[in-house]
Amino acid sequence: MRSIDLNSDLGESFGAYTIGTDERLMQYITSASVACGWHAGDPAVMRATVAAAKAGGVALGAHPGYPDRMGFGRREMKLTADEVYSYVLYQLGALSAFAKAEGLALQHIKPHGALYNQACKDKLLASAICRAARNFDGNLIVLAPYASAFHAAAEEAGLSFAAEFFADRAYRPDGSLVPRSAAGAVIHDPALACKRVLQMAQEGTVECIDGTILPMRCVSVCVHGDNESALETVRLIHSTLRQNGIALRPMKELI
Amino acid sequence: MRSIDLNSDLGESFGAYTIGTDERLMQYITSASVACGWHAGDPAVMRATVAAAKAGGVALGAHPGYPDRMGFGRREMKLTADEVYSYVLYQLGALSAFAKAEGLALQHIKPHGALYNQACKDKLLASAICRAARNFDGNLIVLAPYASAFHAAAEEAGLSFAAEFFADRAYRPDGSLVPRSAAGAVIHDPALACKRVLQMAQEGTVECIDGTILPMRCVSVCVHGDNESALETVRLIHSTLRQNGIALRPMKELI
Amino acid sequence: MRSIDLNSDLGESFGAYTIGTDERLMQYITSASVACGWHAGDPAVMRATVAAAKAGGVALGAHPGYPDRMGFGRREMKLTADEVYSYVLYQLGALSAFAKAEGLALQHIKPHGALYNQACKDKLLASAICRAARNFDGNLIVLAPYASAFHAAAEEAGLSFAAEFFADRAYRPDGSLVPRSAAGAVIHDPALACKRVLQMAQEGTVECIDGTILPMRCVSVCVHGDNESALETVRLIHSTLRQNGIALRPMKELI
Amino acid sequence: MRSIDLNSDLGESFGAYTIGTDERLMQYITSASVACGWHAGDPAVMRATVAAAKAGGVALGAHPGYPDRMGFGRREMKLTADEVYSYVLYQLGALSAFAKAEGLALQHIKPHGALYNQACKDKLLASAICRAARNFDGNLIVLAPYASAFHAAAEEAGLSFAAEFFADRAYRPDGSLVPRSAAGAVIHDPALACKRVLQMAQEGTVECIDGTILPMRCVSVCVHGDNESALETVRLIHSTLRQNGIALRPMKELI
Repeated sequence: MRSIDLNSDLGESFGAYTIGTDERLMQYITSASVACGWHAGDPAVMRATVAAAKAGGVALGAHPGYPDRMGFGRREMKLTADEVYSYVLYQLGALSAFAKAEGLALQHIKPHGALYNQACKDKLLASAICRAARNFDGNLIVLAPYASAFHAAAEEAGLSFAAEFFADRAYRPDGSLVPRSAAGAVIHDPALACKRVLQMAQEGTVECIDGTILPMRCVSVCVHGDNESALETVRLIHSTLRQNGIALRPMKELI
Repeated sequence: MRSIDLNSDLGESFGAYTIGTDERLMQYITSASVACGWHAGDPAVMRATVAAAKAGGVALGAHPGYPDRMGFGRREMKLTADEVYSYVLYQLGALSAFAKAEGLALQHIKPHGALYNQACKDKLLASAICRAARNFDGNLIVLAPYASAFHAAAEEAGLSFAAEFFADRAYRPDGSLVPRSAAGAVIHDPALACKRVLQMAQEGTVECIDGTILPMRCVSVCVHGDNESALETVRLIHSTLRQNGIALRPMKELI
Repeated sequence: MRSIDLNSDLGESFGAYTIGTDERLMQYITSASVACGWHAGDPAVMRATVAAAKAGGVALGAHPGYPDRMGFGRREMKLTADEVYSYVLYQLGALSAFAKAEGLALQHIKPHGALYNQACKDKLLASAICRAARNFDGNLIVLAPYASAFHAAAEEAGLSFAAEFFADRAYRPDGSLVPRSAAGAVIHDPALACKRVLQMAQEGTVECIDGTILPMRCVSVCVHGDNESALETVRLIHSTLRQNGIALRPMKELI
Repeated sequence: MRSIDLNSDLGESFGAYTIGTDERLMQYITSASVACGWHAGDPAVMRATVAAAKAGGVALGAHPGYPDRMGFGRREMKLTADEVYSYVLYQLGALSAFAKAEGLALQHIKPHGALYNQACKDKLLASAICRAARNFDGNLIVLAPYASAFHAAAEEAGLSFAAEFFADRAYRPDGSLVPRSAAGAVIHDPALACKRVLQMAQEGTVECIDGTILPMRCVSVCVHGDNESALETVRLIHSTLRQNGIALRPMKELI
């Protein structure tokens, strides 16, 4: 029987500001990438999110981002590899403290927004992130797109790698994501997102924004927690995959 | 032979801003309390400070503070115990990641500024800090004034405790520090600071700002790294103690 | 014919985070207190809020707060009067730039959260705020509770004063607000909030949380923009006051 | 008699952190570009810097930067023109409040670090900055390199323009600055910096890092306040120019 991981980016609320429906999403996903208090999240939110993941039996990952809360970590910054190394190590440690206090360890690392996107193309940046992950905990899995610079950096660093597919984001024929600023970048229709996941799981392909059919590998499917249809999408993927004989399990059990 | 620990608050530089002479201080101290990026410090500074401590054989502690960089963590904030718990846990984790990447563990925790001062008087606050420390690592030593609310909270939490004496701060007859806003609060004269340390080490007393002689216990002597005479003071204490047959050793070897 | 001002705290969204339904509230209120990018808001939000106020013919005020975004400016901080003076002047200038770019001037100043509450009791703090307001623009109206320390400070500074009544907050018999942490502090029922406003407007009294009937003066009624029932409450107050022959006009036309 | 403006970037201290020797520099310069609390500075520093400029008869300008205090505004960020417009307008307003409280108006605007450098090459960015300046105060002078994209944007916006030359930074033959990360980028020798200024003032040329002699125009000479030799450099330029019959006057008197 085929298995797949279903992940979501959670813990993105901040102070009086709420984003997402984290506790309810926890019922359907198998891995959670938790914001670490830089682009989003704060210690109180991190603590609650880790506790909710524990209660729901959801595996935990770190979701570090740029020091740009005003831009939600979605704006490119030109940092040195050394700066990125230190920023990622800091955030890994901060999140892991909440996991440790609950008797848990982190399963994976997946950077957020612009840091993620830049690391998919920039090997130096990706290597800095992987070096921080390896120096912190050599068992961390790197969650990133298959065949990206990030993928190569993870292998060079000797870290486990899990290929990620985005259920709610349109792809370009080169395998990269359509930028959020472009029309059609974000898929809000749960049925369409679910259909794409099923095609990915069963046929290993995705239909790009221009109609191209692209082969793609995937160990973990991502639905963004701040997409307003996230809960419905995740619920639909959860039931559809099961109906099609595909089990949902955290990535650490799949690689 | 009597032994004592000599600690300093380090890693308080931030971005383009430099405070202190950390690398040179490392030659003379035995424990370093390192800022965790909230009231002061940043990931690059934390990384460099941890590396310098390792190179100098100096034991590491966390120096968490309030989320108030503009006030250098020296202004009182009215936070709930839950907020303080989460903030301290976050900072403990962040700093420990840099220690872990260097193969080190944290020796102690000592909050900064207003958080430290409030925890010396407010048992609820002190207990929240100790709970965070214990949930993170039960081996952490709490560094705080003898007989303070903080001392009591550490014992209740089952954590080891090390009594701290400030070489460069004036005391009031009730054992609390003269506030920084008051005249004579900070002692800038290395000879005077050193004389006080020797009296503390040999007689177990301190002369308060009003002339009262107060008995006091001390496992670790603190010299603030941002005091402009810190380097000279630390150097003088280092040589004077040795000349008087008092060895300098990190607090974990003394309790 | 009796007239009253209806104000709301707006522009509290931040980056990717949305709070309130500002544009729709603008249809019903006559004055808007706009967050200045410290406890809430950011330049893009300030620009949009000022433009919406202009479009809706709503008078503008500054809503400065503490440098504590994580606590939404609701946690007490112990700052010096000089610090508060500078922080308020900074925020007044920042918001007024967006007003100036639209050809508008600020009508009033009303601090946010803990800064507001502390200034109601602490004359030194209130005077620092009023000094900043007067040095920036002597025509600014201070919006604060009648007979508070803030009221006295405004008069001493030679500034106009408008008495404020909170439609959606419970009062204690001493005229202060029930703290948000206490049960019953925030009134979420639009009908109840509206009933209180009508009683205030017609009889000049408010029923306190313990049943006491307290005389109170009011030029401007406040409904908090981040109360989830704000829109319904404001709409109901708007129509009810009109039905009872009470006109809604900005405070500058009432004092 | 030839005249020239001598400007420096000041007010870059922050909280407990000190950068520069602002008060002493004020004796020698004719214009000050004051940080606005984003990349550097804070309200207390802004207030003190404006007061010192007033006391010294130094003309004031705004020195807005990116929201990146950890990187001192020196790291490129990819922002939209709308974001830059709002960020600059915010900072202009904030600084001008302190000027207004002292009865002063701002003379000029000069962005900081990466924002300045990007605006010299990116016309869209430069136009967003100039639009903010014009909407705030049409009398503001734009201080930027001659023949840059920023220069063109200022003219299109109908703003006055003052050409800037950097005494303490090396140039490339295309007229751009050698990046700070490269060797020789910053000139620390006061005598060399002064020699370059004199050549600029007398011959209208600069010797580039590769030896090329480049013609250049200049109304205002900049010495960076955070250069540790700033005070000596400014003092030397001040006396040398006078000895050579060149008067020092603020840019508003020169264009």
